[in-house]
Amino acid sequence: MTRTARAYTNIALIKYWGKKNKQLKLPYTNSLSLTLDRFYTDTLATTIDNDKDIITLNDQLLNDAESKRIRNYLDTVRQMYSFDEHFQIKTTNHVPTSAGFASSASGFAALAGAINETKQLNLDKKQLSILARNGSGSASRSIYGGFVEWNAGFDNESSFAVPIDETPDIDLTLLSVVINQHSKKVSSTVGMENSVKTSPFYSNWVTLVSSEIKEIKQAIAQKDLQKIGEISEHNAMSMHALTLSANPSFTYFAPETIRIIQLIKEIRQKGIFAYATIDAGPNVKIICTKESIQRVQTYIEQQLSNVTTVVANIGHGIEYI
Amino acid sequence: MTRTARAYTNIALIKYWGKKNKQLKLPYTNSLSLTLDRFYTDTLATTIDNDKDIITLNDQLLNDAESKRIRNYLDTVRQMYSFDEHFQIKTTNHVPTSAGFASSASGFAALAGAINETKQLNLDKKQLSILARNGSGSASRSIYGGFVEWNAGFDNESSFAVPIDETPDIDLTLLSVVINQHSKKVSSTVGMENSVKTSPFYSNWVTLVSSEIKEIKQAIAQKDLQKIGEISEHNAMSMHALTLSANPSFTYFAPETIRIIQLIKEIRQKGIFAYATIDAGPNVKIICTKESIQRVQTYIEQQLSNVTTVVANIGHGIEYI
Repeated sequence: MTRTARAYTNIALIKYWGKKNKQLKLPYTNSLSLTLDRFYTDTLATTIDNDKDIITLNDQLLNDAESKRIRNYLDTVRQMYSFDEHFQIKTTNHVPTSAGFASSASGFAALAGAINETKQLNLDKKQLSILARNGSGSASRSIYGGFVEWNAGFDNESSFAVPIDETPDIDLTLLSVVINQHSKKVSSTVGMENSVKTSPFYSNWVTLVSSEIKEIKQAIAQKDLQKIGEISEHNAMSMHALTLSANPSFTYFAPETIRIIQLIKEIRQKGIFAYATIDAGPNVKIICTKESIQRVQTYIEQQLSNVTTVVANIGHGIEYI
Repeated sequence: MTRTARAYTNIALIKYWGKKNKQLKLPYTNSLSLTLDRFYTDTLATTIDNDKDIITLNDQLLNDAESKRIRNYLDTVRQMYSFDEHFQIKTTNHVPTSAGFASSASGFAALAGAINETKQLNLDKKQLSILARNGSGSASRSIYGGFVEWNAGFDNESSFAVPIDETPDIDLTLLSVVINQHSKKVSSTVGMENSVKTSPFYSNWVTLVSSEIKEIKQAIAQKDLQKIGEISEHNAMSMHALTLSANPSFTYFAPETIRIIQLIKEIRQKGIFAYATIDAGPNVKIICTKESIQRVQTYIEQQLSNVTTVVANIGHGIEYI
């Protein structure tokens, strides 16, 4: 009986921003994330006697254009593990757009897990992380729970995630603040590429990440919440400084993003624990403690009418159900 | 008969951001500005038989706290030129806060001119620029009209502005968009200091300015408006990337600043000439042509209700009236 693979989304505290190798999705730097418990993707793969993959997402059959990225990925997987079969892929995505998280991390991690399961590849987690990375860089980290580091590596075999602490006994929780506004978006792939090619600050970013990874790992080991918050916020803002200094300049910030950053500063001035992290979009994730999250959520919701907030806690790695 | 010195404000197209020497106000990099015609400061200095300077601003006598920076500056001037007299300083500032420009550039340039006049120091413009720089770095540039470069130098005598083209025959005009919102402000002095000390990108900024100064001077010589706009916008955004990447991160942007940046992109997509430059505050200055400025102003005013816009053209250097 083939089982369904379930993988959770993750939030990068030290960001992945820039590919050294587009084809293999090898990054310029390591990155470090926290796997979350609330948002996940369930994927079941079964081999079929067909010369084309059949893919359904949330019970809807995807057409050629919609399924192209997944079919290309399956071609890569077939090549990597030297087999020919095609698949029926049934994916259910429990990462609502309205929660402000990208679904590619949990999506490609679950897909890698599903192929591993149905083809009985018996991959260990390192191999699974490599397989997931070939779909989406950040998916490499969703193989593990808790704090996870993705080692940049230098080729397909050396670029994979490792667990830092899968079940950390640490009082962190995340508030996702979603801005109810649709703006034209620069995809993270394009945004990364423009930053690498044109930001005069990119070389300094590579050096920065290397030192902030070391610092945050030390802070995690020491359960130093404030340090974790400070490093995460600084790293995220520095990533956004790369987009601002790209040529031409661009930003993922919406007006409301600046407002939320201002509110987080106000909250912190009241002695309440709250630090910002922001991915390639206008939404803000606020790193909180179990003590602070209620007050942070209330404050944000009182000050801003056009946002939705969602709470997520530390989650675990890929599982089969 | 002692004359009044009149100096105009200027807008930096290549920003001054970071002091190598605080006392002497020596910058880390050159900067390049455009002197404007609409906003200026008139200052009359007369020697008085008193052991303290008496300073009035817009006919109001300044108290000790309010006049401290000016009195300290006058002490520096007395030391530089080895004299003892104190002054009555009458300053009229025609740089309304509501126009979104800092008055320190025109203010200290006019004050330097007024002392030169009343003490009959017969300073040439280079010496006058050095004298103004000792009051406020950007004042060094307000001695000249048109495009002006401030050479960073390495000591008091070598750090002064030079004219690039005092009366450029070039179709540029500026729209200042002032956000009607008072937010707690990080002064530019503190903002610079934090950026220099804590932004991991500062060393790359120094290199960037050096190449953008060369490029914009070439563009000015060739009257290449688009290049001037592009370089100016990129340089300004890169300066703001330094604040975002400072540790702790900060920004001069207000929510409306992001909105105006978005609108400028929309305007440009319609084929209308408009580029942004932003100083140490939330207001945006839009670099326009005589052809585009009316449409830019209308577009901004239609989209945003809570802003004030002001037009300024290319202005000339210090004069005596």
